[in-house]
Amino acid sequence: MIRVAAVAGGQFDSLPAPADLYVGVDAGCLRLLENDLPLDMAVGDFDSVSPADLSRIEERAELVIKAPAEKDDTDLELALKEIFKRHQTVQVQIYAAFGGRMDHAMTNLFLAAEPDLAPFMEHIELVDQQNVIRFRPAGQHRISPIAGMTYISFMPSDGSRLTIKHAKYPLEDENYFYKKCYASNEFIGRDMDISLDTGYVVLIYSKDKD
Amino acid sequence: MIRVAAVAGGQFDSLPAPADLYVGVDAGCLRLLENDLPLDMAVGDFDSVSPADLSRIEERAELVIKAPAEKDDTDLELALKEIFKRHQTVQVQIYAAFGGRMDHAMTNLFLAAEPDLAPFMEHIELVDQQNVIRFRPAGQHRISPIAGMTYISFMPSDGSRLTIKHAKYPLEDENYFYKKCYASNEFIGRDMDISLDTGYVVLIYSKDKD
Repeated sequence: MIRVAAVAGGQFDSLPAPADLYVGVDAGCLRLLENDLPLDMAVGDFDSVSPADLSRIEERAELVIKAPAEKDDTDLELALKEIFKRHQTVQVQIYAAFGGRMDHAMTNLFLAAEPDLAPFMEHIELVDQQNVIRFRPAGQHRISPIAGMTYISFMPSDGSRLTIKHAKYPLEDENYFYKKCYASNEFIGRDMDISLDTGYVVLIYSKDKD
Repeated sequence: MIRVAAVAGGQFDSLPAPADLYVGVDAGCLRLLENDLPLDMAVGDFDSVSPADLSRIEERAELVIKAPAEKDDTDLELALKEIFKRHQTVQVQIYAAFGGRMDHAMTNLFLAAEPDLAPFMEHIELVDQQNVIRFRPAGQHRISPIAGMTYISFMPSDGSRLTIKHAKYPLEDENYFYKKCYASNEFIGRDMDISLDTGYVVLIYSKDKD
């Protein structure tokens, strides 16, 4: 399993965990360089970095993939596609995906909605200081707690029906109600079992500010 | 039209515009007090403030509405319902809705999905330093630019079909494609016309960091 740390252009509030491969996405490349981390791959249209910074990125990066500014994919989507094209068994942790522009945050939070990325959704994780985001496709899943994260919330995709077992707030046939985001659930000392009939579910692990 | 400024418990990065009524939501009450703004209504379960701070809130607030910690609505949803219960013609600007826990941000971004709040969606706006979020129900709408905001993005609700006219990137029958979030569109010196067949659309006005 190759561990990839990808750094996007949002708020960079937590250093990447050790990884085998460091990928910078547009201005995220600078975050890697500033923290003396490797820059194995640089991906983006680089319209948010200065010409001097772009030169520095091109000089330091092992591989640079330059995209046109006007494209259907975001820079991060493009970076992920390049990663999954090159590596079969890979786990990608994405940093600096949030903070700043909310449309960027939304595109990042709903990566699993992108047909080309959906097959890889279980290999993607978004991380910041207070949140870890994971994705699971339709089916049954056992969900484990993450140390330090108090809450887990669930956002099922469009109209898909979620059930949650062995949780502080179970969601089953008897008490089923639809919510866009089932927020602030908690583990009760064991794994949860969830099932989903169609689409995907976004898992949001979170904690209050330290 | 009564202008309401509601302050939630997220990142408080921009001072409210002048308002007729100031509403604090849980820890958001403290943000109002710290900035010497009125606290006309304080709403929440107050589980994220210290007993001393709660005393201060109770002493300073014109009206305190205390909710149980375990409830189906978030504190902000509850505050909005209390506002719309009291005032017919009202425009609510919500601050500190983002930053911090992503599940809170998502519940706030999808306020229009809440059946009790859906009728009032056009009277709600979420504001932070780089974003203004608005909501529009199914139908035809003329969309105006906001000074200083470079981009506008569109998130139609579950499966609803959006069209966009008179924009940098029009979305019409001829070039229709589905996206969870149509990001980074721009105005072309005039209003846009949009239409939506069902549900609602979240409008995200945004700008790059200054």
